[in-house]
Amino acid sequence: MAGEGSVGIVTPREFRFAEPPGQLELDCGRKLGPITIAYETYGALNPDRSNAILILHALTGDAHAAGFHTPTDPKPGWWDNMIGPGKGFDTDKYFVICSNCLGGCRGTTGPYSINPDTGQPYGLSFPIVTIGDMVRAQRRLLDHLGIERLLSVAGGSMGGMQVLEWITRYPDAVRSGICIASGPHNGAQAIAFDAVGRHAVQADPAFQNGNYYGEDGPVQGLSIARMLGHITYLSDETMRAKFGRTLRGKSEYSYDFASEFSVETYLDYQGEKFVNRFDANSYLYFTKACDYFDLVAAYGSLDQAFARIQSRVMVLSFSSDWLYPPYQSREMVDSLVRNRKEVTYCNIHSDYGHDAFLLEVDAMKGLIAGFLEHTLDPDRKTREAAPAAAVAANSTDPAPLSRNSIYEGPRVDYDLIVDLVDPGSRVLDIGCGDGELLHRLVRLKQVDGMGLEVAENNIIRCVNRGISVVQADVDKGLSAIPDASYDYVILSMTLQVIEKPELAIREMLRVGKKCIISFPNFGFWKVRAMLSFQGKAPVTRNLPYSWHSTPNRNVLSVKDFRQFCELQNVQIEREIPLSTAGGGGMVRQWPNLFAEEAVYVVTAKT
Amino acid sequence: MAGEGSVGIVTPREFRFAEPPGQLELDCGRKLGPITIAYETYGALNPDRSNAILILHALTGDAHAAGFHTPTDPKPGWWDNMIGPGKGFDTDKYFVICSNCLGGCRGTTGPYSINPDTGQPYGLSFPIVTIGDMVRAQRRLLDHLGIERLLSVAGGSMGGMQVLEWITRYPDAVRSGICIASGPHNGAQAIAFDAVGRHAVQADPAFQNGNYYGEDGPVQGLSIARMLGHITYLSDETMRAKFGRTLRGKSEYSYDFASEFSVETYLDYQGEKFVNRFDANSYLYFTKACDYFDLVAAYGSLDQAFARIQSRVMVLSFSSDWLYPPYQSREMVDSLVRNRKEVTYCNIHSDYGHDAFLLEVDAMKGLIAGFLEHTLDPDRKTREAAPAAAVAANSTDPAPLSRNSIYEGPRVDYDLIVDLVDPGSRVLDIGCGDGELLHRLVRLKQVDGMGLEVAENNIIRCVNRGISVVQADVDKGLSAIPDASYDYVILSMTLQVIEKPELAIREMLRVGKKCIISFPNFGFWKVRAMLSFQGKAPVTRNLPYSWHSTPNRNVLSVKDFRQFCELQNVQIEREIPLSTAGGGGMVRQWPNLFAEEAVYVVTAKT
Repeated sequence: MAGEGSVGIVTPREFRFAEPPGQLELDCGRKLGPITIAYETYGALNPDRSNAILILHALTGDAHAAGFHTPTDPKPGWWDNMIGPGKGFDTDKYFVICSNCLGGCRGTTGPYSINPDTGQPYGLSFPIVTIGDMVRAQRRLLDHLGIERLLSVAGGSMGGMQVLEWITRYPDAVRSGICIASGPHNGAQAIAFDAVGRHAVQADPAFQNGNYYGEDGPVQGLSIARMLGHITYLSDETMRAKFGRTLRGKSEYSYDFASEFSVETYLDYQGEKFVNRFDANSYLYFTKACDYFDLVAAYGSLDQAFARIQSRVMVLSFSSDWLYPPYQSREMVDSLVRNRKEVTYCNIHSDYGHDAFLLEVDAMKGLIAGFLEHTLDPDRKTREAAPAAAVAANSTDPAPLSRNSIYEGPRVDYDLIVDLVDPGSRVLDIGCGDGELLHRLVRLKQVDGMGLEVAENNIIRCVNRGISVVQADVDKGLSAIPDASYDYVILSMTLQVIEKPELAIREMLRVGKKCIISFPNFGFWKVRAMLSFQGKAPVTRNLPYSWHSTPNRNVLSVKDFRQFCELQNVQIEREIPLSTAGGGGMVRQWPNLFAEEAVYVVTAKT
Repeated sequence: MAGEGSVGIVTPREFRFAEPPGQLELDCGRKLGPITIAYETYGALNPDRSNAILILHALTGDAHAAGFHTPTDPKPGWWDNMIGPGKGFDTDKYFVICSNCLGGCRGTTGPYSINPDTGQPYGLSFPIVTIGDMVRAQRRLLDHLGIERLLSVAGGSMGGMQVLEWITRYPDAVRSGICIASGPHNGAQAIAFDAVGRHAVQADPAFQNGNYYGEDGPVQGLSIARMLGHITYLSDETMRAKFGRTLRGKSEYSYDFASEFSVETYLDYQGEKFVNRFDANSYLYFTKACDYFDLVAAYGSLDQAFARIQSRVMVLSFSSDWLYPPYQSREMVDSLVRNRKEVTYCNIHSDYGHDAFLLEVDAMKGLIAGFLEHTLDPDRKTREAAPAAAVAANSTDPAPLSRNSIYEGPRVDYDLIVDLVDPGSRVLDIGCGDGELLHRLVRLKQVDGMGLEVAENNIIRCVNRGISVVQADVDKGLSAIPDASYDYVILSMTLQVIEKPELAIREMLRVGKKCIISFPNFGFWKVRAMLSFQGKAPVTRNLPYSWHSTPNRNVLSVKDFRQFCELQNVQIEREIPLSTAGGGGMVRQWPNLFAEEAVYVVTAKT
C-alpha cells in the first residue's frame, strides 16, 4: 500500500522482575520468579506518553511482531504487514510494544527456563499460567516502561483473549481494546481440538513427561498437534482453493501410506517447520491457558465482566473463521451494547478462516487506523470536515442493502431529522449507511450516537468518521439493546426494505424513547395515478425501481402507516409530510396525496 | 414410531470366494484371495428377487446393521433405527443385506487376516483396497445370493461413496441409489483430517509398522485418531449443547494437564472404547480408501460419471455436516440434473453434524420409505389416489416460502395449467410445493416431471407422491439445468415472492421450450380502487397480506408483465386472465382491470 514502510532493524529487549521473595502470584496459587519478559518496541513514545499500543500475540507468536533482527533476516515479524510507518498500527504516530507471553519459549520465562531452585529446566514443574497471569506480567513491563495508560491493546486469537483480560482487569489502564478473531472463552469444539493436540504431544515417548530438554523431544507428537492446529486455522474454502485433491509431484496414487496429496505434504512441512521453532511444553501451557480463559465464569456473566470496561472497544471477526466463529464475537458485542459501552463491530468477509487476522490487512487497516485515530483524539469527530473515507479497495459488500444505496438524490429528510433531535441526546441510527446523518448529529447536536449497518464498506466509512457502528441486521431484532437506552432511534428510508417492519418498529419503540421514521409514500398522487390510469406498478423518484428489480419489500402510504400505528398502539407525536420538489418542503394539505415521503416522530402509547 | 419393530436375533453369515488361482484383481494391480465376506440379511427375498436392498457401512461400521446377535445382546446393529419391520428400510417389504467391507476387521478379510502365503497376519502387506474393490467384492456376494438386480443400494459417509460406485460401476444392477452425507470425493480438509489420524496411529511406537497382532497395538495413536474423527462427526452446535465448558465431576480447574473438561473425558472414553473394537490397520486402509475415492478423476468429470447411471437417485445431506458439507451433495445433484437423471435431493435440517445420518431417523424415513416404494412400483404414481403424505412429525421448515403456503383458497390456475400441457411432456415445476400440480400432471397427462422446492416437509410430501423433487432456490438460478431440457417450465403463483424475477424468467426460458407463469394481478380494479380511493396498500383475496407482513416482494399487473415481456424479448403465446369468482373463469374483456390473476404461456423470441 502506498506510503507504507518497514520499522527496519529492531533490537529484542528483556525486562527482568519478580525476583524472590517478590515473586509473581499466579492464578493457580503458586508463585513464580524471577521472570524475564522478552519484548520489542516500534515507533517513539510521545512526550505525554499517550500513544502506546500493546500488541498481544497468538498461540505460536512471539515478541517479534515487526521489522527484522538483522539486515539479512529472511522474514520480518509476524504482524509486519500491520505494524510500521503508514500501516494499520502506524509507527509514525504510535509507540508499539509487543512481548512474548509468560510460559512461552521465545525469550520470556517458560517451561524451558532454568528453575533457580533446581538448576534444571522447569519442564512440567512450571506452574500452569493463565491469560490473567500473562497480562499481569505485561502490566509489570508497562510499569517498567513508565506507561500508565495505553492508547490501545490489540491482538488476535489468544491475543484477543489477552485484550479482553486487559480491558476488564485494568479498565483504567487502557483507552481502547481491539479484539480480533477471538471469544470470551473456548467452546467445546476448540477445547476438543486443543485436547487432541496435547494428547498427541503427551503420547509421544520422547515427551518423557516434559523432561526432554537436551534431547530431540516429542517432535512427532508436536508435529501432529501442529498439523491439526493448522487445519483449524484455515477454512474449507481456502483448503479447496489452495490444495484441492492435487498430488504432490506425481499424477498417480502410490497405493501405500506415504503422504502424497499436496495437503498432506503441506501439513507435514508445517509440522516439521514448527518443531524447530517451538517448544512442545509451551504448546501445552498456551493451549491450556486458552482453554482455561473464561470471562463468563470469572465475573459471573459476560455482562458483569464488560460492565467493568471504561475503554472504547473494537471487535473484529472473520466470516469463515470456524475456530473462533463470528457468533462468539457477536455475543460479546451484544453484551457491550447492553452495557452501553462504546463498541464497533465488523465481521470481515474473508475466505481465509482463522488465519485471516494475519492476512486481511486492508480491511483491518481500514477499520483499525480510524479507530485508533479517534481514540487518540476523540474531539476530532466534532470538528468540521470529515476525512475522505479510507475504504479498503478490496472490501466486498456481503449485503447490499444500505440506505444510501437504495435511495437516489439529495436526502431532504436529513436536515429535518437533525432539527428534530435535542442536543446531547443518545441516538441509535438503524441502517446508518456511511454515517452521514450520525456525523451531522454529532457535529451539530453533540449527540452520543451509534449506528447499525450491514455493509462492510459503510462500516469502514463510519469508523473513519469517528462513528461507533455495529454490524447488525434489524430483521434479527435488537434484543441486545436494553429498554429505553436511547433518546432517539432513527430509521430513515429503510422501512420499505426490511423484512419484518412490525418487529423493527416494536423493537425501536422498546429501546428508544422517541423514534424517527421516514419512508416514501405509496399514497402519493403520482403513484396512484400510475396504477389507476396506467394499470402499472408505480415507478417514481422515491420508488425508482421496476417491479422486477426492487429492493423494496413493503410499500406503504401515509394512511397505511397511520392505521398501523393505531392498531399497534403507537403514538404519532409528529407527522411531517415532505415534498422533494425544489430541494424539499413540507406538504400542508392532503399529505397522503401530495407527500412524496413522510417523516414521523412516534412513541409507545402508555 | 408406531408399528415399528425389531428384526430380532440375527445370524452373522460368511461367504468365501476368490480362491487361488481365481483371486480378486484389485485397483492397485495386486490380487487378493481367498476372501471371506461377513454379512447379515434381514427380511425375506420375494419370489422374483426384486426387493433386495444392499446397505453399505461407514468407516467404523460393520455387517451388523440391525437386530441382536444374542437375546442378551446389550446393543443392536448400527442402523437398527432405520432397518426393521415398519422402519425406513421396511423388512416386511424388503430383503436387506449388509456386509463388512473388504479391508475391515469384523469378519471380512482385512489386514488382521492370515496371509495364506506366510501363515502370518497380513498387516501392512495387505494390499491397498479402494471403494471400487469393496463394491467388486459385494457384487460377488450378490451373485452368490442369486440377486441380479438390487432394488436399492444405500449408505452414509463411506457407505455413500460405495453407493456412488455401485450406481456408476454397475448401472444395470441397481434400480436406485440412496447416497447420504457423502460426496464424489474427499476435499482437502477431509483428506487432511484423515492424514493427521493416520499419522497419530503410525507415530505410536506400538504400531511397529503394522505388525502388532498378538500385542496391544497402537492403542494411544488409534485413540487419538478416533478422538479427532469424533470431533469431525459432531457439529459445533451439538458440542456446545452437549458439553459446553462443563468440567467432569468438579467445579474448579485442577491446574494440571489431566483431562478435566467434559468434552475431553468424553473423547477419551470414545477413544478407549474404539480401540477395543477396531483394528488400527483397518482404520488406515479405510481412511485411505475414502481419500482415494474420486468419481471425478475416475471418469474425467462428474457429468461423465453420472451419464452412466440408469437408476433413480436420492441424495441426502445434513445442514450442519461439515465433514461432507451439503455443497458436495448439491454438486452431485446438479450433475444428475444436467444428465437428466431421476433425482431427489433434500438437505435435512439438523444440528447433529455428520453423525446425523445415524440419528435423523424421522426425516430419513419420511424420504426413504416413499422413495423405495415408488422404486419397487413405479406405476403406483399414475394410479388414482395419492397416499396421505407421511410427513415426519419433527421435520422443520427452514424456508417458509412455498406456493401453497402463501396462497389461500382453491387453485383456479391448476386446472388450466393441466389443460395447457401436452401429454407425455417433460415438465419442471419451480416452487412445486407439496407436488399437487405435478401429481395431477403425471396422473392425467403422463408427464415426466420434476419439482424444485425449498421446504423440507413439502419435499417429503412430493416423494410420497412419487414426484422427483430437488431442494433448490430459483433465486440462485437454474445453472445446473441444460438449455431446452423441458417442454414446460411452470412458475405458478410464485413470481411475486422471488427475489430475482428477471433472472428466474430468463432461466426458465433457457431451460424450457415453453414457460407457464401465473401471478396475482396488481392491476385488478379492486387493487386500484383500494390505493386510489382509500390511499392504502391493497389487500385482496389474491394479495391477502398487509404491507408489514407480506411475503410478496414484487407486485405487478398484467400490463407490467406484458411490458416486461416486450422489453425482455419474451413472446407471449397465450394470455389467460382469470377471475376466481364462482370457482374461477376466464375474463373476456379489459383483463388488466378485471382479472384477479393471470396465466401466461411464454417462449423466448427467436
